[in-house]
Amino acid sequence: MASFEIPKTNPLLIVISGPSGVGKDSIVQRMIERKFPFHFVVTATTREKRANEVHGKDYFFVSKDEFAHMIDEDELIEYAVVYGDYKGIPKAQVREALASGQDVVMRLDVQGAETVRKLSPEALLIFITCESEEELEHRLRERKTESADSLSLRIATARKELQRIEAFDYVIVNHDFHLDDTVEKVRAIIAAEHLKVHHRKVDL
Amino acid sequence: MASFEIPKTNPLLIVISGPSGVGKDSIVQRMIERKFPFHFVVTATTREKRANEVHGKDYFFVSKDEFAHMIDEDELIEYAVVYGDYKGIPKAQVREALASGQDVVMRLDVQGAETVRKLSPEALLIFITCESEEELEHRLRERKTESADSLSLRIATARKELQRIEAFDYVIVNHDFHLDDTVEKVRAIIAAEHLKVHHRKVDL
Repeated sequence: MASFEIPKTNPLLIVISGPSGVGKDSIVQRMIERKFPFHFVVTATTREKRANEVHGKDYFFVSKDEFAHMIDEDELIEYAVVYGDYKGIPKAQVREALASGQDVVMRLDVQGAETVRKLSPEALLIFITCESEEELEHRLRERKTESADSLSLRIATARKELQRIEAFDYVIVNHDFHLDDTVEKVRAIIAAEHLKVHHRKVDL
Repeated sequence: MASFEIPKTNPLLIVISGPSGVGKDSIVQRMIERKFPFHFVVTATTREKRANEVHGKDYFFVSKDEFAHMIDEDELIEYAVVYGDYKGIPKAQVREALASGQDVVMRLDVQGAETVRKLSPEALLIFITCESEEELEHRLRERKTESADSLSLRIATARKELQRIEAFDYVIVNHDFHLDDTVEKVRAIIAAEHLKVHHRKVDL
């Protein structure tokens, strides 16, 4: 059959980002439950594996030497020290998934998303926010892990992060109790990106 | 409530285009049936109103003088002469819909879409195609209004038009018997465009 030639689609590097407390984790979790076709990146960490955790699923558990080696070789998309433990995303994993034709999804804070943008200007950056400061405050309180101090710090941080929205491609307001709407918006964005005539060409 | 300020969305000027026979009419018809929230533009024509037609719904029926006046005043997005009758899209109608905050959808041939691109670089251009030349030929034959000559001409034209896809934003392959899939793709594109951080600003 003489096929009409149209541009072939490329796999996407998708970053779900936004201030702490807007619901990034729940969104990615729901995307997995809904069987969105993507590879979710697993973070490498130097901390001890807990009994209920699975290597390669929850985290890649690596030694401090192995982690240091990845830093030296520039093999991490980004990394951070959290309470003395190192956490970071290995580039190899993202490269492999993209090479196999899969979309890759990463959940990152706003600074992490900006790092990805610099590394790979063609990455697809989605900013998640919520409707108001009050709602964010409410959500952070619900977690019950925040002291009053850290709460006001997080709100102030969220306010600052919102000013960096210009570096993102899309913004979704994750309304309370409307997680499925948010996830459908993410789906629409991914679908539309795959229908573009001019595709993003991700390089890492 | 202290709202987080995010960029306000603009109405879109959406053009559904593609070669003759790929199913543009059915797609727009289905979008209307599915109650997509948009203003569908009505073409102005100088031909006689038929008994079953409604002025302002099927067409705007105008005199040749009125049409000439719109040409003079540069008040048409594009126009063409079809069997001695003039057909064209009044800019006023599109402007009014956009001003009221509605997305506007137009169904145009590839040349018409290119004209819109020149007039309004921020218009959203969707190219509809089908899987193969054989499928297009089959569809054109089904219409039974084509002579053998005009069929080969239309296929050749489609082949040429496909080379102009670079001027478009999105491309959808309208698979036979999968009209609903196609319409959902259009829906995803429109939804995603409304979630962009940097909006299209349509000027006419």
